[in-house]
Amino acid sequence: MKPVEFEPALARRMNGMKASEIRELLKLLEQPGVISFAGGIPDPALFPAEAAAAAYSRALRQPALALQYSVSEGYAPLRAWIAEFMRREGSPADPDNILVVAGSQQGLDFLGKLLISPGDTALTMAPTYLGALQAFSAYEPRYETIRPEDGNATPAALRASAEAAGGAVKFAYVVPDFANPTGETLSLAARHNLLDLAAALEIPVLEDAAYRALRFSGVQQPSLQALDVARTGSLDASRVVYLGTFSKTVAPGLRVGWVCAAKSIIRRLVLITQASELNVSVINQMVMLELASQRQERLVETGRANYRAKRDAMLGALDKYMTGKATWTRPDGGLFVWATLDPSIDGATLLARAVEEAQVAFVPGKAFHADGSGGNTIRLSYSLPSPAEIEEGIRRLAGLL
Amino acid sequence: MKPVEFEPALARRMNGMKASEIRELLKLLEQPGVISFAGGIPDPALFPAEAAAAAYSRALRQPALALQYSVSEGYAPLRAWIAEFMRREGSPADPDNILVVAGSQQGLDFLGKLLISPGDTALTMAPTYLGALQAFSAYEPRYETIRPEDGNATPAALRASAEAAGGAVKFAYVVPDFANPTGETLSLAARHNLLDLAAALEIPVLEDAAYRALRFSGVQQPSLQALDVARTGSLDASRVVYLGTFSKTVAPGLRVGWVCAAKSIIRRLVLITQASELNVSVINQMVMLELASQRQERLVETGRANYRAKRDAMLGALDKYMTGKATWTRPDGGLFVWATLDPSIDGATLLARAVEEAQVAFVPGKAFHADGSGGNTIRLSYSLPSPAEIEEGIRRLAGLL
Repeated sequence: MKPVEFEPALARRMNGMKASEIRELLKLLEQPGVISFAGGIPDPALFPAEAAAAAYSRALRQPALALQYSVSEGYAPLRAWIAEFMRREGSPADPDNILVVAGSQQGLDFLGKLLISPGDTALTMAPTYLGALQAFSAYEPRYETIRPEDGNATPAALRASAEAAGGAVKFAYVVPDFANPTGETLSLAARHNLLDLAAALEIPVLEDAAYRALRFSGVQQPSLQALDVARTGSLDASRVVYLGTFSKTVAPGLRVGWVCAAKSIIRRLVLITQASELNVSVINQMVMLELASQRQERLVETGRANYRAKRDAMLGALDKYMTGKATWTRPDGGLFVWATLDPSIDGATLLARAVEEAQVAFVPGKAFHADGSGGNTIRLSYSLPSPAEIEEGIRRLAGLL
Repeated sequence: MKPVEFEPALARRMNGMKASEIRELLKLLEQPGVISFAGGIPDPALFPAEAAAAAYSRALRQPALALQYSVSEGYAPLRAWIAEFMRREGSPADPDNILVVAGSQQGLDFLGKLLISPGDTALTMAPTYLGALQAFSAYEPRYETIRPEDGNATPAALRASAEAAGGAVKFAYVVPDFANPTGETLSLAARHNLLDLAAALEIPVLEDAAYRALRFSGVQQPSLQALDVARTGSLDASRVVYLGTFSKTVAPGLRVGWVCAAKSIIRRLVLITQASELNVSVINQMVMLELASQRQERLVETGRANYRAKRDAMLGALDKYMTGKATWTRPDGGLFVWATLDPSIDGATLLARAVEEAQVAFVPGKAFHADGSGGNTIRLSYSLPSPAEIEEGIRRLAGLL
């Protein structure tokens, strides 16, 4: 007889934490023959493996540094490099404005921890990045949808409904460039709308810049942080918290990203880091510094060319096979196209059929909506398959509709 | 004029999060001439730097694995190795009983997140590991002291005071072997007392095994988890959650540790990992597997010999210089001696004098007490200085008393 499993009494927050469909779907990638538009993961053909091996060897010439504990703020020379990168982005950062985190996902967790008391309100777009909703939900917020392009609710209305729910509006979270999941980019006017709203509500704005470097058409918009620095006069007075990562431009396996923000915020995030991971693996920080400082520009160029060709293949295939069956976004960068199907179609049901009957995978759109809507939407990532596989995968998917 | 700093409204939990004295003290280590008994950090002379360089090169022959995102549970071959290690420890683990975390400190954070709602009660010894108190405090528990050696409060009394405070007793946390900060080890009777208490309260026990491998005298006690498996019949029925780490036996810089527990607990911790770091750096997991599987036993042997000599140097110096001025523990393993001074002496005040007048550093004991007591205690780590420096440092410190 199977013994009874021990089940401890859990924290209340666990009621709101569910398994990620994206993470479960990663397992499908391992099945041979499946053409996967799931996962937002970079093309491993772009990874600088040889340079990384050389960088690890060099870092290990200083084992007392590379293999030891380190300060929670991050490896000082990497913080300095990131500060210089942020200055080129229009954010006048000192190293003290930078915290190194284990990927920007960890930054989202730490910011949720910093800002959210149970019942507080987080403002997000709908759809928005599923991983952000997961990170924040551990701290028991409620969500309210903002629409920077189409007009937001008034600050007074947002404040009133947050107070009615027993908390306060604590922050707005957006992916302004080539968003996960839609691939869309906020216009300059929408950026200003968002900053106006945040100023009226006196809240921080979390700017998730995960895909920002990967623009391959159109004109780069200023970052929200750069716009806000221009308004407020300094980074330390700015309300924008910028989340950066090397995962999409160098490699995600090292788990190195950063938060760039006012020092008052970084200081508190350092306390949170001390109470969690202590510090990001310092050898990985040393290696990332070497890879980024020597190769970041070349890696970004190669990545853009690679993903541009794949986006073109996907948009071409969608035009060819999906016209009349769906509508979709036309991204200027990043890794994702977002498709809206007939309202009678459920994305999750379609996925089950797609994997079984057509050996194609994608992510149903519902999980990206805090309010549970979006059942007839799907996210298509073009980052991993080849252009030929993209054409074939879209052809097969269209055959199911 | 300096612009005003932006100060967002913070989550209530931030009231309880303070800067770690230990982390701040790490900065003192960088001053030349200071003999540091602060920090619980391993001797870098023990780090397997050449083997690590070879292992990184080998891992990078599979860049699509080593540099990519990975599953949140951890790298499967490493989980299998850890499960085998745990079976030798008396815990009949499958890989599904193992979660890889970024050091056992991250495991403490995730367990606090899993178990604590604000106002719940955590049972700890006093003193106990400061980093655990920091990790848990982010989730707003209250603390109650247990004394497994001397007799605990009754389950009914603990339950009543937890309920009076508006929550429930959620877990007990202990470092049973060569504890941080005391260096002391729980007797077999105390281990059973603790398991009896946990069974009566129906709560999990978090067993922090960070130093367990580093025994250099006396007889190894069974782990709490092994004792509980013997009581309950299986690991999945056991209430003990074992936190392991490679930081003290291989190297902390890779940030690789693990949690071994009932599958019902591991499944929930996987959700928490998905919402935070996504996964521990997979290249670091691959390298740790190679280092652990090829060298763990040799590294542990070398570490034991190194730290035994240093403990002997410290106990010898204490006997020689401190007799009559303080009392102290006599650890059978680990990295720490715990000294109790005259009640008139404050450890923090002494530290300031010690750094300035004698160029010696240690950690004042108060921070290790959830109740703010322990002002006349200090933690002395012998892991980093040489035996000669230890003798000299204790001599200088005694001169101040």
